[in-house]
Amino acid sequence: MRVSEARQWDRLMQMARLGAIPGDGVNRAALTDLDQQSRRLLLSWAMPLGLQPSVDALGNLFLRLEGTEPGLAPVLAGSHMDSQPKGGRFDGIWGVLAALEAVQAIIEAGIAPRRAIEIVAWTNEEGGRFAPGCMGSMGFSGFRPPGTWDDVKDRDGLRFGDELARLLAAESDIPRRPLGFTPHAYVEPHIEQGPLLEAEGLDIGVVTGIQGSRWFLVEIAGKTDHAGTAPLSLRQDAVQDMLRAINALNALMADPTDVLRFTVGRVEVFPNSSNTVADLARFSIDFRHPEAAVLTERGDAIAATIHGALKTCRATVTETFHALPARFDPAIQAAIAAAAQAEGYGAKALPSGAFHDAQFLVPICPTGMIFIPSRGGISHHPAEYSSASQTARGAQVLARVLVQLAAG
Amino acid sequence: MRVSEARQWDRLMQMARLGAIPGDGVNRAALTDLDQQSRRLLLSWAMPLGLQPSVDALGNLFLRLEGTEPGLAPVLAGSHMDSQPKGGRFDGIWGVLAALEAVQAIIEAGIAPRRAIEIVAWTNEEGGRFAPGCMGSMGFSGFRPPGTWDDVKDRDGLRFGDELARLLAAESDIPRRPLGFTPHAYVEPHIEQGPLLEAEGLDIGVVTGIQGSRWFLVEIAGKTDHAGTAPLSLRQDAVQDMLRAINALNALMADPTDVLRFTVGRVEVFPNSSNTVADLARFSIDFRHPEAAVLTERGDAIAATIHGALKTCRATVTETFHALPARFDPAIQAAIAAAAQAEGYGAKALPSGAFHDAQFLVPICPTGMIFIPSRGGISHHPAEYSSASQTARGAQVLARVLVQLAAG
Repeated sequence: MRVSEARQWDRLMQMARLGAIPGDGVNRAALTDLDQQSRRLLLSWAMPLGLQPSVDALGNLFLRLEGTEPGLAPVLAGSHMDSQPKGGRFDGIWGVLAALEAVQAIIEAGIAPRRAIEIVAWTNEEGGRFAPGCMGSMGFSGFRPPGTWDDVKDRDGLRFGDELARLLAAESDIPRRPLGFTPHAYVEPHIEQGPLLEAEGLDIGVVTGIQGSRWFLVEIAGKTDHAGTAPLSLRQDAVQDMLRAINALNALMADPTDVLRFTVGRVEVFPNSSNTVADLARFSIDFRHPEAAVLTERGDAIAATIHGALKTCRATVTETFHALPARFDPAIQAAIAAAAQAEGYGAKALPSGAFHDAQFLVPICPTGMIFIPSRGGISHHPAEYSSASQTARGAQVLARVLVQLAAG
Repeated sequence: MRVSEARQWDRLMQMARLGAIPGDGVNRAALTDLDQQSRRLLLSWAMPLGLQPSVDALGNLFLRLEGTEPGLAPVLAGSHMDSQPKGGRFDGIWGVLAALEAVQAIIEAGIAPRRAIEIVAWTNEEGGRFAPGCMGSMGFSGFRPPGTWDDVKDRDGLRFGDELARLLAAESDIPRRPLGFTPHAYVEPHIEQGPLLEAEGLDIGVVTGIQGSRWFLVEIAGKTDHAGTAPLSLRQDAVQDMLRAINALNALMADPTDVLRFTVGRVEVFPNSSNTVADLARFSIDFRHPEAAVLTERGDAIAATIHGALKTCRATVTETFHALPARFDPAIQAAIAAAAQAEGYGAKALPSGAFHDAQFLVPICPTGMIFIPSRGGISHHPAEYSSASQTARGAQVLARVLVQLAAG
């Protein structure tokens, strides 16, 4: 059983033309015409293989390879097809095409799996057009009711509910299935979006879980003053107190093991005039760690650290997101590691720094992820890249894992 | 010779209705219809006093009280009538109305000055609509040729040259005078825009000069990364290196005497997304000091301080403005101090932190400024406030100074 490196690469490059942007990037937002075209292109490859398509109420698209015992829970594998606004050619879409490639290799090898294998393309993982992301997988797993996001609007004022209805109407020729079921297992192939596999020259990441995240928005309120007249001793300078707060947070978040992720990525200052002392500074905190204890301990200390660091201003600290770490199933991890070893590929266990649809499958079935290297660790950017052979090795490992899981 | 507190206050409040905004503020930009209305209102008070109006090619408006020796160089006093977009009721306009009040008190006292006294309202001091500010005084003093700013556009795309021509056409009934002359002296009354007079319970600031300013724009370029995946040790985080740069600048600018002014008022971060490591951070530096040596020494060290502070990114440091300190004439300062003492007002010598039209008069004639207290040091804000008695005391001091200078 061998996947085809050339065929998979050709499909990746065909998909990359749908929404192509300068610098080899892709802009293919969920529920757009381009999204519809990419799903039709996927179907054009799946149908000749005899896969059975179906769509649920959230637009999640399934392609089923029937098993010899159709009544058993199927093995599910896939990812998403939407991209970031200035995204790359691999994030998400490779996971769907890898699942297709693995299933095609299984068929071509004449293997008849006991359980059905279903390829899935989840709706709106990125959340770039309609926030939040992972709507398809959250609705599928019952984490949120399916109508939750109907009134979410994109920048043009279009409603998620309306755009979803438009997609479903355009795909009325595809059989509809009920939303949600309990898979036997779920495996998601994805690019690493980080530099570790490339740095160590490895082929496969056996993902141990998705680290937990806590997001905060901090507002520091001071007093506006004339930059030429107000003595520094009398100021309530929001920029300077923001500086003190982030300095103190850097100390709180210090981690010699380099596992902790602490990012201030958004900063806004008002009135934002060069000769006026700012009376308001706003910044974001993105704090992630694979261990719940660290996430709780240091995250709970954030507000007090900020309040203690301020000299003259007042701070408001709001937690905007709190997700505990998700741990992937040890048996799935073992199956991925064994498959990589059997193929002679270099592999290592590592946590995922980014969110994935997989985290919403963890509560309902044994779940795992397969990572392949990302050049330079770059993702959510046109320069995102994994080579043809790297994508092929990832698909080859997936094929082995699917055969094993579908026999179980 | 006594100025009228009630009359001056009434005029201030009438002027404040032209462009009134919520919270007692004023938005009266240069060369707007509101600006024209405020000039007509000023003329409606000046003409019955027998003052002779004239306008030069830059729209600077003069009101002349003739002297007994008309051939002598006149004494000039005034300020500007335009406001910041969210400005107050006193910045600029009080200086013009104080000059009018002083001249009216001189007339009412039956004093016939040897030299003419001219009230001036300079065009576009604030620079909020057409940048830079102080166009009228810069053109008057020959610091810049009068056509320099014709192509400067406001937010609506209107040209300064066209809007100036519109004003001059609307004021074609007012005699035109040549641009520029050499006054015997120039005195500008203005609110302090700082907290020092109020803090010490004083009435009058004898302004020693205008501190020098150096402005810089700093851009720090790093590399964008995924906040969840990129290890902190591998990042080129522009926000973190901006933090290091400002920390180092704070150390460079430390001043136990609290005379130095150092402000980072503008901060912008790109892509400014909470879960993305920033690859670009931009911030402004506004550095002011009354001593040229300090301004040169520390200002020249700014770029090296920033470059030395960065850990992983590259910085571009651009100096956008460099004005050496201006020193006011000792004899004018002495005249202001003597007038305050004669009236029994508390006074102190202090430098101006803000720019004023007066700095462009320094090279062409003996120049000085009279400050009155600003409540809370607040300026460029609707809450800007000086009391009726404070404005009256300032005008009273000006009247004494004008009488003395016009006799010289």
